[in-house]
Amino acid sequence: MEEKLVKEVPKKSENLSQWYLEVIRRAELADYAPMKGMMVIRPSGYAIWENIQRLLDRRFKETGHVNAYFPLFIPESFLKKEAEHVEGFAPEVAWVTKGGSEELQEPLAVRPTSEAIICAMYSKWVRSWRDLPILINQWANVVRWEKVTRPFLRTTEFLWQEGHTVHATFEDAQEEVLRILNIYRDFIENDLAIKVYAGRKSDREKFAGALYTYTVEALMPDGKALQAGTSHNLGQNFSRAFEIRFEDKDQELKYAWQTSWGVSTRLIGATVMVHGDDDGLIIPPKVAPHQMVIVPIYKAKDKDEVLSKGENIFASLREKFRVVYDSREEYTPGWKFAEWEMRGVPLRIELGPRDIQKNQVVFVRRDTREKISVPMDSLVERAEEVLAQIQKDLFSRSEAFTLENTREAKNYQEMKEILEEKRGFVVAPWCGEEECELKVKEETKATIRLIPPEGENVEGEKCIVCGRPAKHVAYFARSY
Amino acid sequence: MEEKLVKEVPKKSENLSQWYLEVIRRAELADYAPMKGMMVIRPSGYAIWENIQRLLDRRFKETGHVNAYFPLFIPESFLKKEAEHVEGFAPEVAWVTKGGSEELQEPLAVRPTSEAIICAMYSKWVRSWRDLPILINQWANVVRWEKVTRPFLRTTEFLWQEGHTVHATFEDAQEEVLRILNIYRDFIENDLAIKVYAGRKSDREKFAGALYTYTVEALMPDGKALQAGTSHNLGQNFSRAFEIRFEDKDQELKYAWQTSWGVSTRLIGATVMVHGDDDGLIIPPKVAPHQMVIVPIYKAKDKDEVLSKGENIFASLREKFRVVYDSREEYTPGWKFAEWEMRGVPLRIELGPRDIQKNQVVFVRRDTREKISVPMDSLVERAEEVLAQIQKDLFSRSEAFTLENTREAKNYQEMKEILEEKRGFVVAPWCGEEECELKVKEETKATIRLIPPEGENVEGEKCIVCGRPAKHVAYFARSY
Repeated sequence: MEEKLVKEVPKKSENLSQWYLEVIRRAELADYAPMKGMMVIRPSGYAIWENIQRLLDRRFKETGHVNAYFPLFIPESFLKKEAEHVEGFAPEVAWVTKGGSEELQEPLAVRPTSEAIICAMYSKWVRSWRDLPILINQWANVVRWEKVTRPFLRTTEFLWQEGHTVHATFEDAQEEVLRILNIYRDFIENDLAIKVYAGRKSDREKFAGALYTYTVEALMPDGKALQAGTSHNLGQNFSRAFEIRFEDKDQELKYAWQTSWGVSTRLIGATVMVHGDDDGLIIPPKVAPHQMVIVPIYKAKDKDEVLSKGENIFASLREKFRVVYDSREEYTPGWKFAEWEMRGVPLRIELGPRDIQKNQVVFVRRDTREKISVPMDSLVERAEEVLAQIQKDLFSRSEAFTLENTREAKNYQEMKEILEEKRGFVVAPWCGEEECELKVKEETKATIRLIPPEGENVEGEKCIVCGRPAKHVAYFARSY
Repeated sequence: MEEKLVKEVPKKSENLSQWYLEVIRRAELADYAPMKGMMVIRPSGYAIWENIQRLLDRRFKETGHVNAYFPLFIPESFLKKEAEHVEGFAPEVAWVTKGGSEELQEPLAVRPTSEAIICAMYSKWVRSWRDLPILINQWANVVRWEKVTRPFLRTTEFLWQEGHTVHATFEDAQEEVLRILNIYRDFIENDLAIKVYAGRKSDREKFAGALYTYTVEALMPDGKALQAGTSHNLGQNFSRAFEIRFEDKDQELKYAWQTSWGVSTRLIGATVMVHGDDDGLIIPPKVAPHQMVIVPIYKAKDKDEVLSKGENIFASLREKFRVVYDSREEYTPGWKFAEWEMRGVPLRIELGPRDIQKNQVVFVRRDTREKISVPMDSLVERAEEVLAQIQKDLFSRSEAFTLENTREAKNYQEMKEILEEKRGFVVAPWCGEEECELKVKEETKATIRLIPPEGENVEGEKCIVCGRPAKHVAYFARSY
């Protein structure tokens, strides 16, 4: 649709940041809106989001969650009920102050996240232990007034899902938090083919109002970490602020335990960054809007035969796959190859007169460029195999890169060198004090991305910064 | 979840308005949010919306449409570009005037509809006839600052889909407008089981900025019409305001032709009103969150046998249907019957020890209360048949009611009497002048709901109001 500019896409290895912006524009995933920091998600980008929604929503429902929809606007007084929460979010809130011609008595926040309004409703709905657990998720837009933005990774408005659950005990809430963390890890690794580390945030980095925040973190090609999803144990912070109480089996009135968790359209940005190459996107088959494109190649005399054979192939594949048949006559095969490579379609199927003679087609993998001759009668099976192989190989590549760039540092000096020169994750013991965490941030720009389960309680190690006894082993990295 | 109040639900026939509010609350479709005019769509209501989305989205995609996402905020200056458009919507706009701590230089409208921002993007994307048609739909929330609200039917925020298409010619746009109108009619009649009339709005009633507006209108039990969906031929009004031009095949630069169309969560309100009865909701099987509920009935000695047989039945039905097995022990069968009737589950399956002896179950239809003994070995087939029959019967009932309440008036006096006493639609010739339209509105509160295709150009008839030659035959009714 958009005018194709001849402007070259910069090489990914040379200028990741420019490559990222240019690839998103050229592949028509998104476009800048005329308002600062806002973007339009174009059909090619939105189709990835629809696949993400479908695959995640299925996992949520299989684990007993249901969807609902809460209001976009939150009165200022509600946002203020949980002290840490409002402190964390107030600087980024967009405020509605006028409705029609009338000035509002109380400004309404455009939701930056929905704890405050959802908890207000939960305080009406929760009465007895019989009402628990409440396992509600919401697919919605949220707004955060950001100063520096980048398509998908950080925008003023974005789309996400936010789960908000209520439980009778701390243990139930904690189990939910980890169940969701595991769903996120499973989805991002198996469907988006991106290796992630999962673990707990430090107190400094946790969600405003949470007891504990758990996170999945992915490594981008420039060695910076990206927070891909978070799952919060809210403890009783919100239930106390919003009076969410239930009569337990022992007839005592108790404050409920809560969780919240979310992933957003940021996942599209991660997918673009991790898998793409100098020729454009590479979208993992499980979330690709088009899993394959059929390109017919012919001279005038073969046209009818090739085009009609192409139709047959299209018909045989479309029941099982998301496939597009590019039989447009105004473009050459070479142009189409480049176009669909830019758009990241994982598998190209070429069909020419010689292929028809041999009763075959040629598969071309987007990721490796490997060409595979495939007999006509095993088209569906082979397509399935090759897509599965691409999915697997993309993950392996991401995993290998992440592991290669996860390093243990012997001492603080080495840690600083790695974070400056090689980037990636540095794994190191930490005393648990904010002082050391802040020192690392000031001197290296890296933050604690997570404390992995095996790093929760360590003995005999010394903090890499101060040398005092370490409490945790943490993953440090610069981040988006 | 919610505390069950003993408060009686009023009879539908005696107080439709109170019945509607009470049924929505009791069936937990929605709840009032603590902000004026806003509601929460609870899981039981949202599940209906998910089914509506799925069934409509499939139809849109089958006709070549794709989804995208445009920003929530629209700068005031964009809204003002199309003069009629801003005049129509400005009084209902919620304005964002502050981002973080910063006062905005230009207020941002929270979208009441998205023509203004989408057209701004289209003016960037459209260059050549090759770029056309653009067939984009968006699922989104919108905000209109309403004074009088009612759950689902009119709320400050609601969920909807809005299609926005661009075409090379008037004819292409007109074809799209009617294609969508037909999709709406087909969906509402076949899936929501609500009879609708389809036709064109009068100029007075059309969308702010449109050339023509087409509508589907349903009749509610109190004889008032409800606008259930609209499809607008925007002509070149927006393409001229936003400079959406393309180079045509003849190399001339031309303004594009556009359409927009939408249905909203209001459809849930219509479904509640049309089908429900004194005992609660009746949800048509095609959009019911749960199509059937299995209720085991037993005394202590039969408990294990009945519960385990119930599990088997549940397992055999769940692959094909949205089914719930209510084996909760803290509630009696009678309580469960009432509860699921309130929630509108179209089919109840009762299973007791005598049924097991006879190797059968008992189906109970929600709509007719008819009881049907069904042999165990034909459970799936019979369930399918009975659900299809319920779906069909619900539509027939709605259709019969609508036809019965669609009357031709011999003269203006009779028209006034019908609209006052019997309500419903009055079909009458109309001269096409706003003067007569307004007179009817002032004297009867009825508006022209639509001009049906067969009523577009009539000859030899006289306007029911002024007696001058009629141009159209129109459907008049009071409305929501």
